Amino acid sequence: MKDRKLLMIPGPVEFTPQVLRAMGMATTSHVAPNFVEVFGQALERLRQVFLCPSGQPFVVAGSGTLAMDIAAANLVEPGDRALVVNTGYFSDRFAAVLERYGAAVTQVRAPAVGDAPSLSEVEAALRAGGGYKLMTVTHVDTSTAVKVDVRGLAALGREHGALVVVDGVCSVAGEEMRQEEWGIDLALTASQKAVGVPPGLALVMAGPRAIEAFRGRSTPVASYYSDWASWLPIMEAYLARRPSYFGTPPVNLLWALNVSLGQILEEGMEACFDRHRRLSTALKAAIRALGMEQVPVRPELGATTLTAPYYPEGVDRAVLGQIKQAGVILAGGLHPVIKGRYFRIGHMGAVTESDVLATVGAIEKGLAQAGYQFPAGAGLIAAQATFTAG
Amino acid sequence: MKDRKLLMIPGPVEFTPQVLRAMGMATTSHVAPNFVEVFGQALERLRQVFLCPSGQPFVVAGSGTLAMDIAAANLVEPGDRALVVNTGYFSDRFAAVLERYGAAVTQVRAPAVGDAPSLSEVEAALRAGGGYKLMTVTHVDTSTAVKVDVRGLAALGREHGALVVVDGVCSVAGEEMRQEEWGIDLALTASQKAVGVPPGLALVMAGPRAIEAFRGRSTPVASYYSDWASWLPIMEAYLARRPSYFGTPPVNLLWALNVSLGQILEEGMEACFDRHRRLSTALKAAIRALGMEQVPVRPELGATTLTAPYYPEGVDRAVLGQIKQAGVILAGGLHPVIKGRYFRIGHMGAVTESDVLATVGAIEKGLAQAGYQFPAGAGLIAAQATFTAG
Repeated sequence: MKDRKLLMIPGPVEFTPQVLRAMGMATTSHVAPNFVEVFGQALERLRQVFLCPSGQPFVVAGSGTLAMDIAAANLVEPGDRALVVNTGYFSDRFAAVLERYGAAVTQVRAPAVGDAPSLSEVEAALRAGGGYKLMTVTHVDTSTAVKVDVRGLAALGREHGALVVVDGVCSVAGEEMRQEEWGIDLALTASQKAVGVPPGLALVMAGPRAIEAFRGRSTPVASYYSDWASWLPIMEAYLARRPSYFGTPPVNLLWALNVSLGQILEEGMEACFDRHRRLSTALKAAIRALGMEQVPVRPELGATTLTAPYYPEGVDRAVLGQIKQAGVILAGGLHPVIKGRYFRIGHMGAVTESDVLATVGAIEKGLAQAGYQFPAGAGLIAAQATFTAG
Repeated sequence: MKDRKLLMIPGPVEFTPQVLRAMGMATTSHVAPNFVEVFGQALERLRQVFLCPSGQPFVVAGSGTLAMDIAAANLVEPGDRALVVNTGYFSDRFAAVLERYGAAVTQVRAPAVGDAPSLSEVEAALRAGGGYKLMTVTHVDTSTAVKVDVRGLAALGREHGALVVVDGVCSVAGEEMRQEEWGIDLALTASQKAVGVPPGLALVMAGPRAIEAFRGRSTPVASYYSDWASWLPIMEAYLARRPSYFGTPPVNLLWALNVSLGQILEEGMEACFDRHRRLSTALKAAIRALGMEQVPVRPELGATTLTAPYYPEGVDRAVLGQIKQAGVILAGGLHPVIKGRYFRIGHMGAVTESDVLATVGAIEKGLAQAGYQFPAGAGLIAAQATFTAG
């Protein structure tokens, strides 16, 4: 019993009992009427969660990297020019995926780890480039907890005629993102993040311009498994409540997805965004009160779904073991340049005030055991003050 | 309660309560020590189930089609010549996947739907081709229930210097397949078939020659998501019980996989093959006793995991609804040429004598309701006689 731990990493996150129950339900046929209805409903609910009523959803068995693969494979033709707004490890990955499919990639890099290119730098790059087919943006880079101004970037991209592609792996259903209103042509995520479903589903929402670009291709999609030519008729069929077959859908994960999307929509997207903001503010206040710096170099760059504190002086990765002993699992660093110097706390999905307090408490206990000095309870007091005020 | 049905389709199949329980367990981190141990163990168990002790296993989030994609993307370079032994829908698909990655595909086609090319036809094609890089074989084509002589074909392929690739989606852990002994260079399947895990995992076992062919490539793999360059270090790390990251593994499906592989190995591979053979023999005897023909044109072509009866005179697809009312879910036809004229019964994984009797009983009830005349209980008697004979 004492081994039960709270999972506060940037995915997988804690899932609700209802979602886990759906995972363990007896599997039915992928063409059974009850499954067809659930798949269709999940696709419709995804439109609501992505705030993209006219979007074409794709749900495919795979990891978040498959979602990136699907975006690049279907939108890029060899020789196409792409601009990558780079804020860390996952922006690097998007550049690699785009290049694999033949894109000529230009990157606008953050001046330093933890920073992000400014809108004016991106605008200058778009202007200088003289015509990119697409631009990719990592809404929250899971490696740095840096969040970019997706709304501003999307407006710039559109203005310069580029398809706007947003990696929303650490964002969708946690960070405020309004796909259709903000003019995002494709957004993607993975199930195990704020969407709140165990890992195994790549989730892609394509707007009309993305579908149009796909339909206008003059070369076949290089990847067989990612090709919308195969998946589009399937998604359209399930949306119309008709069974269809290309690859067997991961039935249990789809059930779990539909349950989780239902829970998210029951809370409401605005309330969901607000909750994530409130919890993030409280946790970040606690981190500051404990005297720790964060990877994002300015507060407005800090993600709402994720916090990345540097270890304080005299403390290293070993403290994560002590924090785990105290009941909470956190993640180590991922960005190669600073990997050993920081850690990551995920706070997305079905996360609560209690989870944040439990996390802060465990961090305090771990830091104290590591010999770090701080005013007793400073983190808890700061977090609680935020909750009480708000 | 009365709505509980027995799922006897060619996947997803019925899963054990232990497997479903693993699906619904609280998800942990993909780098947590207990998960690392489970993933490593599952990879080792896969070697035993594929009977390929020196194989390199790959477990990736995706459908069975992804497993085909992984095989083709990593083994084919543009211009490579491939021979496809074609026995139905899924052989057609393998040809399409190979072509997508640049292979020049030659097909040896079955003379008719339900038949398979003979060994001598395949040998002639191999000889005439004067050097194929690889040969693909669909062990059991899920569309026709036709099983090929994988052992004989693999020997021919090797003799002519081709890498032997077996689509074992409807076979591995059900049909007798001895990957290493039979000289199969790569075999693949999906979780929801005889392996007994809900859909969502692509399973690939690569022998040393396949890995060597991959390492000797002069061009990059065209698909980003399928590239062994990314997955090989991950699988090696988990086998060595070290956490590693490329894409987040589908934690719950991995738990379920490890449970199911454990159950299969507890039964033992020989006993598992025997059970599948016994159940298949009984079911096919029942189908014959009920006066129905089967898609495979000769008994030795009939799969052990799957039975594909033609509807008898005067009966059509509607009978599947009546069989379902009687408690058993079967699948319709899939092969385009005969789609409306036959149906499919999957019998693989945790399937029992009772399941076969229940299935035969439901078919009898459905046929009777459809107005088809047969000696009362003929199917049940035939199946039971097989079981009683041992």
